[in-house]
Amino acid sequence: MASLPPVSKPKRPSPLLSIPFRQPQNPWTPVDILNPEQVEQLHNASMEILENTGIDFLDDEALIIWEKAGAKVDRAARHVWIDRGLIESASASAPVEFEWYARNPAHNLHIGGNTLTFGPCGGMVYASSLEEARHPGTLADYENFLRLTQMAPVVHFGPWEQVTPQDIEVSVRHLQRLRSGILLTDKVLLEAAHGRIISTDNIALAKIAFGADSPPGPIIGDVINVNSPLRYDKRMLGGLITYARAGQVTMITPFILAGATSPITMAAALAQQNAETLAGVALTQLVNPGAPVLYGGFTVDMDMRSGNPAFGTPTGAWAALAGAQLARRYKLPYRGGGGLTNSHLPDAQAVQESQWMLWSAIMGHANVLMHSAGWLEAGLTASFEKFILDVESLAIFHDFFNGFEINTETLALDMIAQVGPGGHNLGTPHTAKRFRHAFYESTINTRQNNKSWLDAGGLDATQRAYVIWKQWLMEYTPPPLDPAIREAVEDYVARRSKELENVELYMD
Amino acid sequence: MASLPPVSKPKRPSPLLSIPFRQPQNPWTPVDILNPEQVEQLHNASMEILENTGIDFLDDEALIIWEKAGAKVDRAARHVWIDRGLIESASASAPVEFEWYARNPAHNLHIGGNTLTFGPCGGMVYASSLEEARHPGTLADYENFLRLTQMAPVVHFGPWEQVTPQDIEVSVRHLQRLRSGILLTDKVLLEAAHGRIISTDNIALAKIAFGADSPPGPIIGDVINVNSPLRYDKRMLGGLITYARAGQVTMITPFILAGATSPITMAAALAQQNAETLAGVALTQLVNPGAPVLYGGFTVDMDMRSGNPAFGTPTGAWAALAGAQLARRYKLPYRGGGGLTNSHLPDAQAVQESQWMLWSAIMGHANVLMHSAGWLEAGLTASFEKFILDVESLAIFHDFFNGFEINTETLALDMIAQVGPGGHNLGTPHTAKRFRHAFYESTINTRQNNKSWLDAGGLDATQRAYVIWKQWLMEYTPPPLDPAIREAVEDYVARRSKELENVELYMD
Repeated sequence: MASLPPVSKPKRPSPLLSIPFRQPQNPWTPVDILNPEQVEQLHNASMEILENTGIDFLDDEALIIWEKAGAKVDRAARHVWIDRGLIESASASAPVEFEWYARNPAHNLHIGGNTLTFGPCGGMVYASSLEEARHPGTLADYENFLRLTQMAPVVHFGPWEQVTPQDIEVSVRHLQRLRSGILLTDKVLLEAAHGRIISTDNIALAKIAFGADSPPGPIIGDVINVNSPLRYDKRMLGGLITYARAGQVTMITPFILAGATSPITMAAALAQQNAETLAGVALTQLVNPGAPVLYGGFTVDMDMRSGNPAFGTPTGAWAALAGAQLARRYKLPYRGGGGLTNSHLPDAQAVQESQWMLWSAIMGHANVLMHSAGWLEAGLTASFEKFILDVESLAIFHDFFNGFEINTETLALDMIAQVGPGGHNLGTPHTAKRFRHAFYESTINTRQNNKSWLDAGGLDATQRAYVIWKQWLMEYTPPPLDPAIREAVEDYVARRSKELENVELYMD
Repeated sequence: MASLPPVSKPKRPSPLLSIPFRQPQNPWTPVDILNPEQVEQLHNASMEILENTGIDFLDDEALIIWEKAGAKVDRAARHVWIDRGLIESASASAPVEFEWYARNPAHNLHIGGNTLTFGPCGGMVYASSLEEARHPGTLADYENFLRLTQMAPVVHFGPWEQVTPQDIEVSVRHLQRLRSGILLTDKVLLEAAHGRIISTDNIALAKIAFGADSPPGPIIGDVINVNSPLRYDKRMLGGLITYARAGQVTMITPFILAGATSPITMAAALAQQNAETLAGVALTQLVNPGAPVLYGGFTVDMDMRSGNPAFGTPTGAWAALAGAQLARRYKLPYRGGGGLTNSHLPDAQAVQESQWMLWSAIMGHANVLMHSAGWLEAGLTASFEKFILDVESLAIFHDFFNGFEINTETLALDMIAQVGPGGHNLGTPHTAKRFRHAFYESTINTRQNNKSWLDAGGLDATQRAYVIWKQWLMEYTPPPLDPAIREAVEDYVARRSKELENVELYMD
C-alpha cells in the first residue's frame, strides 16, 4: 500500500469542481464495426432464439402479460416464445429519447440521441482507499461516496448503491440507502428495482422527495439484469413491472459472459444479448406503453484461467460498439459500462481497462455509461481513489466534446504573421485574451517538471487522488432540502422500517 | 518507490511473446471531427501562411532548391514564400503508401492505407525503472531497450534512440547507437536524420547491415522536427535532404505547443502545423520525387501553470484526429504520437494520458504512432515498466482489429437452444473447441480473485511489469547476423569513430 500523503484544506478548489453540470453531446459519427448485413444477421438470429428457443419468465404476472399479448406461454414451465411481430409491435412504443427528472432541475437529464450520461459504480460490496484497505462497505462509506458523487459535476446520477452498506439490516437497507441518497444528493435517483416491495418503496420515497413538484416524467430508475442465459427471475421481473407501470426508467441489461452464460463466440453472445434485451424492452411496453427504457449491454469474455469476467479486453470493446449499433437499429437509447476493470488497486491496470471500456462505448455513441466512477475488482470493490481518477477522465471527455471553432479570429493569420519564424506566442494579445480558459485544466494529472514534482512530495496519481477526495469531503455541503420534505422522508423510512423488520425481501 | 518483487525464470513465456509480428488493419471508418468545409478552411489558411508569411529555411542548399523550383527566396534572410501551386505540384509525387524494409524480411512494414504501425519511444535523456530510479541514460540502458523492442512483437520498429546513451561521446554516439541497433534487432531501423554527416553515416551503416541484399525501397528513416513557428534549422534540413535524396523515410513533424510555438487557438495551431508540414513534404519531393515521406503531427497545448507541454488532453486528441484528416486530404500517410504522458511514474496518470493519445490517433486512422512504448515525463524519461505496460496495451489493439466473424457456426443457435435457459456453456463442444484461443490472453492485467492475487504477492501492475521486463531480458537471444556483415559494421564504426573524434556535429 502506498504511503498516505498529508491532507490539508486546499489553497484553491479542484478545477474539477468548477466544471458546469451538463451532458456532453458527441457530435461525430459513431464507429460502426458491423456492416448493415451483419446487423441484420444478429437481428434475425435473435428473433429465431425468441421464436424457437424462448425465454424463462419466472413470475406469474409476467406470464399473464405475455399470454394476453399473444405470446406462446407454458405456464408450468414458466417459459415464453415470442415471435418477431410481437417484439416489434410491442417495442415500437418505447421512447427514442426522454427526460429524466432530478430533485434539483439543474440536474435533469436528457437520455438518448447524441447525449452522453455518466453514472457512478453501483452494487459494490467492498469499499477501499489508501486509508482503509478493502473492507465490507458501511453506511459511512456509502454516504461518503454520495457526497463525492454530488460534488463531481461530470457524474450525472446521484445515488446508486455505490457501495452496499453491510452494517444495515437487509430488510431495511433500501430505505436507508435512498434516504441518504435524497438527503445528500439532488441528482437523478437510481435505486434497486428488486422485487415489488422494494421497488414500490423506492418509487414512494422518490415521490416524497419531489414534494409538491410532480415532474411530467420519470424520477427514478434502475438496471434490470437478465439471468443469462435466457431467464428473467422473479425479483427482476417484479422490479421491471413495478418501475415500468409507474413510468420509471428500466435499463434492461443481460450480463453475458461469453463462454459461460452464452456460447463463446461473439456472434452468438451478441445474438443472445439482443434476444434477451428486446424481450425485456417489449415487456416494459406491454406493461405500460411509452415507459422509458434503455437497451443495455454488458457482454464480456470469461477469463479461461480464473473463470472470472475479463474487463478491458477486445471482447468488451466489440460488444460495446456492436451493442450500441443494435440499439440504434431499434431506436432505443443504449446503456453500457464505463470504468470497468478487474484490477484490485487503482493502478495502471485499472486505468488501462477503464479507458478501454470508456473509449469503445463512447466511440459507439453509448447514451448512458454506468459504473463510470469508482469501480474496481470486477465490480466487487468501490475505491475512493479510483472514483477521483475516473472523474478526471470523464471531465476530459466533457471538454473533448466541446470541440473547437474554426473562423477568422481563431485562425489568427495576423498573429502567425506578426510572431513570424522563430518567435513565440506567449505574450501576444491573442494569447493573453484566452490563456485562462483555452485548455483543459487538470486536477490529478501533473504537468510539473521533475524538481517541482519531487518538491511537492513526488506523489503518484493515486496518492494525489487520495488527497483530492479527502479535501472534497472537507468542502462538501448538502444540497438544500425543504424541512417538510425531509420530515416526510424520515417518517416514511421509520414507518416502513418497522413494518419490514425481519421480512425476507429477496424475491418478492 | 514500490518495493521490488522477486524475479525468477518464468514457468511459461508471456502470452505477449507468442503474438505473431504483423501490422493491424483498422477496417472501420475514421472518426472525422472536421466537416469538409473545415478541412478546406484549414487548408486555405495554411496556404495563405506559406504564400504571405513564408518560412525560414536555415540551409543554403535548401534555399537553392526552393529557388530552382520557383519559390520566392530571400537568400540573406534565409526565408522562402511558397505558393499553393508549387506546394501542390511538388507534393503530388509523394507516395500514398510504401514498403519499408527490415534486415529480417518478416519484419518489413507497409506504411499507409488502413495499416497501423507502432514505434517505441525515442530521444529520451533519462532511463528509469523500479530497480534504478531516473538517471541519465547509458549504453547499457539503451541496449536493454533494444532487446525488449526486438522481443515485443507489437512494436514494429527496432532502434530509435529509445534512450540517449550519455556515456558515449556525442561525436560518435550515432555510430554506437546504430551499431547496437543492427546487432541487437532485425526490425526496421530509425536513426537520427541530424545534419549531413550523421545522416550519411546512418545510411551507409544501414546499407552495410543489409549486405548483398539491396531492397527496392527505404531501409532507414527518422522524424524531421520543425522548429516551430515557421522555421526549419540547418541540422534538420541536412537530415531531410540527405535522407530524401537517398530515398529514405522522413516523417515531417512540427512540434507545436499551442500558446507558445503557435497561437493558442486550435484552428491556428492546425493551420500552422499544416503549412509547416506541407512545406517539408514538398521539399522532400523537390529533392527526390517519390521519396517516402509522412505527414506528421504532434500538436498539444502548453500547460499555463508550468509552461510544459500537456499530454493526454482534449487538445492533443483534437490535433491527432484533425491531423489525420488533413493527411488524408493530401493522400499522405499520417504519423502521430502514441503513449504520451507528463507523468513521472508508470502510474495511473501515465496510462490515462497514454490511452487518450493512442485511442484518438487510432480512431483517426493514424498510420505510424511513434513513442508508443516506454515514454514518460513529457519525453524526458524512458521507463522499463512503462514499456511493458504499453506493449500490453498495443497487443490489445492488435487483437481488437481482428474483429469477429458472424456466420452460422459462430451464431451457434443450436448451442443456445441446447444449453437453454439457466444453463451454462462451460462444457459444451462449441466452447471446448475454442476456449484456448477465443479471447485475448493478458500478460500484465490480472483476472485473479482477491485471494489468489494476494497469495501471488498482491503486486500492482507496475510491479508485475517490472517482473516481465526482467524475465524478457533473461530470455532474449540476438537475431542471427552474418559474421561478415557484423565485421563490416564494426569496421565502419571503428573507422568513422576515429575520423569523428572531437568533431562538433551539431548542425553539419
